[in-house]
Amino acid sequence: MSPRAKARGGIDLGGTKIQTVVVSARSRVLGEARTATPQSGGPKAIAAAMAECLREGAAAAGYETAALTGVGVGSPGEADGSTGTVSGAKNLSGWNGTFALAEALEAALGPKVQVGNDVQVATTAEFKLGAGRPYRSLLGVFWGTGVGGGIVLNGRDWLGRGAAGEIGHVVVKRGGARCPCGNRGCMEAYAGRAAMEAKARRQVKKGRKTVLFDVMEHKGKDRLTSAVWEKAIKQKDDLALELVDRAVKALGAGIASAVNLLDVEAVVLGGGLGVRFGERYGPEIERRMEKNLFAHDNPPAFHVAELGDLGGAIGAALLASS
Amino acid sequence: MSPRAKARGGIDLGGTKIQTVVVSARSRVLGEARTATPQSGGPKAIAAAMAECLREGAAAAGYETAALTGVGVGSPGEADGSTGTVSGAKNLSGWNGTFALAEALEAALGPKVQVGNDVQVATTAEFKLGAGRPYRSLLGVFWGTGVGGGIVLNGRDWLGRGAAGEIGHVVVKRGGARCPCGNRGCMEAYAGRAAMEAKARRQVKKGRKTVLFDVMEHKGKDRLTSAVWEKAIKQKDDLALELVDRAVKALGAGIASAVNLLDVEAVVLGGGLGVRFGERYGPEIERRMEKNLFAHDNPPAFHVAELGDLGGAIGAALLASS
Repeated sequence: MSPRAKARGGIDLGGTKIQTVVVSARSRVLGEARTATPQSGGPKAIAAAMAECLREGAAAAGYETAALTGVGVGSPGEADGSTGTVSGAKNLSGWNGTFALAEALEAALGPKVQVGNDVQVATTAEFKLGAGRPYRSLLGVFWGTGVGGGIVLNGRDWLGRGAAGEIGHVVVKRGGARCPCGNRGCMEAYAGRAAMEAKARRQVKKGRKTVLFDVMEHKGKDRLTSAVWEKAIKQKDDLALELVDRAVKALGAGIASAVNLLDVEAVVLGGGLGVRFGERYGPEIERRMEKNLFAHDNPPAFHVAELGDLGGAIGAALLASS
Repeated sequence: MSPRAKARGGIDLGGTKIQTVVVSARSRVLGEARTATPQSGGPKAIAAAMAECLREGAAAAGYETAALTGVGVGSPGEADGSTGTVSGAKNLSGWNGTFALAEALEAALGPKVQVGNDVQVATTAEFKLGAGRPYRSLLGVFWGTGVGGGIVLNGRDWLGRGAAGEIGHVVVKRGGARCPCGNRGCMEAYAGRAAMEAKARRQVKKGRKTVLFDVMEHKGKDRLTSAVWEKAIKQKDDLALELVDRAVKALGAGIASAVNLLDVEAVVLGGGLGVRFGERYGPEIERRMEKNLFAHDNPPAFHVAELGDLGGAIGAALLASS
């Protein structure tokens, strides 16, 4: 492909890493890069790291960023596509307020920048390019640090008043475990990686044995990443197996609740844990979901996300002008 | 209004009663009638009772049914608007299979008959004519024998693949109480009048004291109707208070789950218990819902259904040709 062919940039902004891609007009990945999200310095430092990471991804594809037809960003917090601002991205350093992210990136990169919600762009990517292609309505479930959800109905994103899709905060046990959001009994309180780690730490304090934290240290990490969980599961660690089983049950019940309400054609399971554990635990999540369906005889199709770790960035690129 | 002015008929078919209305072009109620749903004789007997009840409602309005421009029916089970058939209405006598309801009613009444889902037509009625008028998206929650739900998004019904809106079967307690649908932990297992009555009967068997069944007999009923629950609550009956409180908590959690997913502008609470208890318990259900919202700072509006007991029949009439 000639460097003059049209290409777009996509940036997936996460709490721990930034992933960028440069894609062709048909969304083929031409180059990609990844970097750690700055944990200090606030939105300005994060925007600078995003710009640098996209430059690397563009270079890998043989492009200057100024030559891209547009850039899209999938962001946590409240991303306002009309103003290009992101507000209340609480898992990012110093980002409780509102920051003009599109403006900052346009100044650094050149092309027009469009911002959107991270989970919604990942859902759109699966809908348009991944496992959701055959369907007109779907529910995307992103199982990672938290559990995010994206909804497509009649071929279009359903955003509600801007906060739709919070499947992680569907109540699966009234009065149950405390969720990072402050409420009780949310699906995320059982299935989110952050909640799973907190529970593991409490169990260890109570004297429970587990390899989870040894594996973590061995990998040079300071938290239980998806890879840490996977390794502990492979070693048949009791606590890891127990906590993943608890997560799987919560996911099954919460997804069933969503399907009972929305009756979508398909469910697509993505996210860090979803992609990593999709093959191993997807069928069990599906079975648990089916157990709680009202319309037993007509379950939705159930797929693991096809675009894997790049889905968020590829989806972000879909926001960009082509 | 002259008897020659255009009027439509609406029939709300329920497990215990049939409610009919005749309405003007602007959906003003001109006449109404009500009868008990035949508990034997199957679909034919039920269709005959529906036709007779609409004749009474029409007579009260000064119309022959043949003069109506159209008739709509809100039905339980799977109502197929394109074929006029109703299938699997399991709470009705002998209606497990498929019955050509529109055809039977057209033969008996004259005008064209359109069938639809009972909960969805009641939701549409509140959306177009009742508490939902100011909004473009809403969730209707019908708290009665079961708990039904209807969804309006961007001004249009969301039906999914035909089975959307089953808010009664959102899981509020994973592995919890057995629901009439066979699953465990559904909202309806705590909040549906049938489940509440079953629980009350089990408690009485265990020696628990309550006025519920005395009130029932005094009223000449064989089941705990909404009126029976209301009277027991007024008498501050412990068991009744406890079971309604349990229902209210389940409703709050389940409605919050739905709002976290859909982020609708408004929730409208209807149904036999919802209408009767709306004033007394609506604020508590709303408070419980808000407690479990993810977007705490932007709760949906919360209203009790405005059309009351006639909402289903008025909504059914909206299906009819005008």
